[in-house]
Amino acid sequence: MDNFTFYSPTYFVFGKNEETRAGELVKKFGGSRVLVVFGGSSASKSGLLERVVNSLGEEGLESFTLGGVKPNPRSGLVYEGIDLCRKENVDFVLAVGGGSVIDTAKAIAAGAVYDGDFWDFYSGKRIEEALPVGTVLTISAAGSEGSPDSVITKEDGMFKRGASGDAIRPKFSILNPALTQTLPAYQTACGITDIMAHLMERYMTNTKDVQTTDRMIEGLLLAMIEEGPKAVKEPDDYEARANIMWAGMMAHNNSCGVGRSQDWISHDVEHELSALYDCAHGAGLAVTFPAYLSLAYKHDVARVAQFARRVWGCPEDIDDEEAALMGIESLRQFFKDIGMPSTIGELGGSEADIDKLAHTACYGNGRTGKLCGFVELDEEQIKQVYRNML
Amino acid sequence: MDNFTFYSPTYFVFGKNEETRAGELVKKFGGSRVLVVFGGSSASKSGLLERVVNSLGEEGLESFTLGGVKPNPRSGLVYEGIDLCRKENVDFVLAVGGGSVIDTAKAIAAGAVYDGDFWDFYSGKRIEEALPVGTVLTISAAGSEGSPDSVITKEDGMFKRGASGDAIRPKFSILNPALTQTLPAYQTACGITDIMAHLMERYMTNTKDVQTTDRMIEGLLLAMIEEGPKAVKEPDDYEARANIMWAGMMAHNNSCGVGRSQDWISHDVEHELSALYDCAHGAGLAVTFPAYLSLAYKHDVARVAQFARRVWGCPEDIDDEEAALMGIESLRQFFKDIGMPSTIGELGGSEADIDKLAHTACYGNGRTGKLCGFVELDEEQIKQVYRNML
Repeated sequence: MDNFTFYSPTYFVFGKNEETRAGELVKKFGGSRVLVVFGGSSASKSGLLERVVNSLGEEGLESFTLGGVKPNPRSGLVYEGIDLCRKENVDFVLAVGGGSVIDTAKAIAAGAVYDGDFWDFYSGKRIEEALPVGTVLTISAAGSEGSPDSVITKEDGMFKRGASGDAIRPKFSILNPALTQTLPAYQTACGITDIMAHLMERYMTNTKDVQTTDRMIEGLLLAMIEEGPKAVKEPDDYEARANIMWAGMMAHNNSCGVGRSQDWISHDVEHELSALYDCAHGAGLAVTFPAYLSLAYKHDVARVAQFARRVWGCPEDIDDEEAALMGIESLRQFFKDIGMPSTIGELGGSEADIDKLAHTACYGNGRTGKLCGFVELDEEQIKQVYRNML
Repeated sequence: MDNFTFYSPTYFVFGKNEETRAGELVKKFGGSRVLVVFGGSSASKSGLLERVVNSLGEEGLESFTLGGVKPNPRSGLVYEGIDLCRKENVDFVLAVGGGSVIDTAKAIAAGAVYDGDFWDFYSGKRIEEALPVGTVLTISAAGSEGSPDSVITKEDGMFKRGASGDAIRPKFSILNPALTQTLPAYQTACGITDIMAHLMERYMTNTKDVQTTDRMIEGLLLAMIEEGPKAVKEPDDYEARANIMWAGMMAHNNSCGVGRSQDWISHDVEHELSALYDCAHGAGLAVTFPAYLSLAYKHDVARVAQFARRVWGCPEDIDDEEAALMGIESLRQFFKDIGMPSTIGELGGSEADIDKLAHTACYGNGRTGKLCGFVELDEEQIKQVYRNML
């Protein structure tokens, strides 16, 4: 096991109706003038936004709202939020939404106390200082409610980049599974895929002797395999939603990723898909992961066979190669069963795009011709991954 | 799933040689005059204490030492530590040791800033304020490095009681698995048993639909079953020690115990054993858990059968009753295999003590005749649990 540090100081408040405690929690963490960031009209239509704003008012807190965050959130709204914070002397940023809303709130919180352009943080500068951030989570997927990370797309050039720092870790996150019951089946399935991808990116490691984190990841994946389809089939299943919500946080606060190398090639490969086809991140991952593993498993057949046997119940008495391939097929079928696509065609793409996709994956974002993680892939191998999606 | 809050703000620094960062970390969390609390002579003989104290000195921090913490730590040393803190204007308490040392440090930290008798906190008063605490862990067992709890025995009457509060959660915990390599096999096995007990106390729940935490607990138990015997057999196995150390923290920071009722009857039953026979807590738990489950499984055969199948690999095609009993037998055999006792006789007790043990378990510590958790046990049933240890 490699040396590591682990830090997850967020105060999690989980369960029914807990969003009405937003005011109490903002106050606990020192806020008095609060910027409430949210996405589309569903937050206001459902009455959630009102409940949250009322709860702030009941504690005597001043609030300002900033709506309109979109999936793959943009820099424009971040600049707007920063201006608003400065103008109104905001001292706390509260995200009400999913990963995109939380990531926007984090960017605003960091930018509001920074003299330069907030984009500096998304160009490699570590975030050392920020306004305190809190969240009311409405989508189980990205894990941003318990992470120090934020991903924003710069409109000028459409660069999608990440920033990180303990200062933007949420002070508190309110996780009410009932708030996710209104999500349509497709979006629910995208979230499930994203959570499973966060687990599998950590699972595909080159570090030896990591039983404890292996077993934790396997356990969380097994829970997702059991609970995910229930929530897709029966959106009102509170218990399934609750299990998924806690797994989504645990999948990404890194409890089960410490002390081991991680992969993240699938995220890089997928990124080109969502950039080109504007598909949902989860849908892109559902197509990418089996396609990627079909090539990458050869690097460590025993590991992928372990994944196949422990997570997908593949037999002990077949050889590792056969088990690994069977596991990858089970993964593909699982995504299919919850309504996710499994080919690039279903995302709106075709074979003709592959050269471009592979080239951008290899040389975009400052890369120098390779993707490195569990394996090292050059441009030709990345083309093969995309061809596996046909 | 029940509503819950989860908070685990400790900064964990894990790996080889990390104890040399003690000074840097105390400084990071605001300490300048440090009380270093430790146990017996092994900390100084091994050179660990010197390394830690030097690391404080290198950062320009003043340090004071207080040694002599014993297993089942006593109130006397706590009073001594509180006096020392006041006399020397100590502003940080650093524990170098296992659970007993950490619990003593926590008690001192709370008592030093409290006007009354620190024992008030161990008589039900919540700890709201304390000096900051840090730890350098040397035994994987109690999980105190990531918990808000402390257990102290009052010498006057030998009452063993617990206190709790976020204020005594360690600000940082240094977890270097190599520091546990000097532990003898028996003490290693006691620690493994304690960790598994923390997991099983959480597993035996009456809350329905808790797949995510079930699967996490099962995963951690499977890791302990694989890695535990390696460390017992080969004390120098760093990787096994590392897996156990992280599992020990995860077992007790409550990541996998949230939103579900927990049991803890075995801890209550065991407490009478270690009080009467002065045996190690882990050894007492190894005797208690199978004895307890042999009676308690009837309350929810399906749950214990699930435990038996998923954790101990019992067959799917036998009935639940048979599987449950087979799982309990596997647990007993596992403890035996790592060198733990399985009868009350091996702890130094006999049948003649059972009435007294059961009576104290039922009516001691302010109890009113029952032990409640996964099941409800009256005095007659508790006698049966003790008889199952013969």
